[in-house]
Amino acid sequence: MKPQATSMTPAELKAAADGSVARLAARSGRLTQHTSGLAMGNVQGNVVILPADLASDFLRFCQRNPKPCPLLAVSEPGDPTLPTLGHGIDMRTDLPRYRVWRHGEVVDEPTQIESLWQDDFVTFVIGCSFSFEEALMADDISLRHIEQGRNVAMYRTNIATEPAGPFHGPMVVSMRPLRAQAAIRAVQITSRLPAVHGAPVHLGDPSLIGISDLSRPDYGDAVEVMADELPVFWACGVTPQAALAQAKPPLAITHAPGAMLITDLLNRKLASF
Amino acid sequence: MKPQATSMTPAELKAAADGSVARLAARSGRLTQHTSGLAMGNVQGNVVILPADLASDFLRFCQRNPKPCPLLAVSEPGDPTLPTLGHGIDMRTDLPRYRVWRHGEVVDEPTQIESLWQDDFVTFVIGCSFSFEEALMADDISLRHIEQGRNVAMYRTNIATEPAGPFHGPMVVSMRPLRAQAAIRAVQITSRLPAVHGAPVHLGDPSLIGISDLSRPDYGDAVEVMADELPVFWACGVTPQAALAQAKPPLAITHAPGAMLITDLLNRKLASF
Repeated sequence: MKPQATSMTPAELKAAADGSVARLAARSGRLTQHTSGLAMGNVQGNVVILPADLASDFLRFCQRNPKPCPLLAVSEPGDPTLPTLGHGIDMRTDLPRYRVWRHGEVVDEPTQIESLWQDDFVTFVIGCSFSFEEALMADDISLRHIEQGRNVAMYRTNIATEPAGPFHGPMVVSMRPLRAQAAIRAVQITSRLPAVHGAPVHLGDPSLIGISDLSRPDYGDAVEVMADELPVFWACGVTPQAALAQAKPPLAITHAPGAMLITDLLNRKLASF
Repeated sequence: MKPQATSMTPAELKAAADGSVARLAARSGRLTQHTSGLAMGNVQGNVVILPADLASDFLRFCQRNPKPCPLLAVSEPGDPTLPTLGHGIDMRTDLPRYRVWRHGEVVDEPTQIESLWQDDFVTFVIGCSFSFEEALMADDISLRHIEQGRNVAMYRTNIATEPAGPFHGPMVVSMRPLRAQAAIRAVQITSRLPAVHGAPVHLGDPSLIGISDLSRPDYGDAVEVMADELPVFWACGVTPQAALAQAKPPLAITHAPGAMLITDLLNRKLASF
């Protein structure tokens, strides 16, 4: 059992620029919030944990929806480690905050799941836009939510995912406001990074993908879109959570949106060309 | 002297799908219009012809403005051939229509310039968006101006070029209306083609680059932009014509906007990766 959640001090947040420090902070219960802007060199991952009898369906769901669900790793059943993603990762403790789903509803948001762990649990880790944000910022593209210390804004859309077994539902997207020239450059940069959602799925008018009000995101925090900016939308690894709400499995566990698994992989090694 | 211009028959236009057939049609005076949609496999070029004393300044202008002015070839002074671009090209006759500029004003739009040719003329050939249009259409992206048999719409912007000698002025852009997903794909496709203007320079609100009315292009033909589309803007090889209007050299010759030099180079060989 990890200690009761407490906020990290500014000095601790700075130290958490190192991936393993940040992951250990999550394990110890010192890091319980979103990880946007933390450990910027490291690949972060969306997490879905399912009993083995649903794993095959979910694996096909990811294969059919590679933009929202680019798989970075799938665990052995019952094994809480992910040796290809980092030394000593323990999925029972290493997320800052979890969501426990029962029959499609979030029933708890604990900071560890040791007491819930089952010997048939399979962990899926899905690439996260936080990885490409590093590449955007390295190109001098400003990201408002990071400047303002907020979680990224995420929305359910009217873009349907390709179903597999019980999993189906709307694609979830993350949104970043960018001026046109930065948006064009962002398409180029993120096209190189298919393992972390790749190119945007939409830009411009949000209503064309079923988003009626940008100021009311379904997950994360709203940010302002200026008059000379376009909202740019990327497929998001929270999409499986919308699919869980449809599939209503008896039990599933995910990360809390924005509170990601911090791996030992390096973002700079993800580029495909 | 080539014969008086006459329109091509539908059968002749079809045969002009072959680059050398189209170029010979221009040479003979049978092709006197814009070349949009003709000889789709072949690289087409914007043309600027200047006396040698201005050639060095113009060469630096192109080097400093590679998006509107990607140079495909520069001739030897006085030589009307361009052996790297095509067998037997004769710049005195091979454009469908020329513009003769005196002191920054268009004074004539002839179909050949044999009587004007000078033994110090240097020809510059600049990549043209018609080349990347082939790549877009090969990816099932519809281009309205081609569907409607029109020239592409071109606009002067408030984006300043980098000056060189007397050459300066606004960047000219071509515009194609695309839905967001096609616009994102078009950024990817044209990024591979820096020799023919590369990625767009802007998309979305035209007023942000100084275009007040899309229905009134400065060159070419207007096309409608639908409610679910974004106007997407690429740097255009007509930019030197805006610079000629500023530089006001005693004599210069260009192609008429849209009436390009059709080369023997193949578009499919242009991709940089």
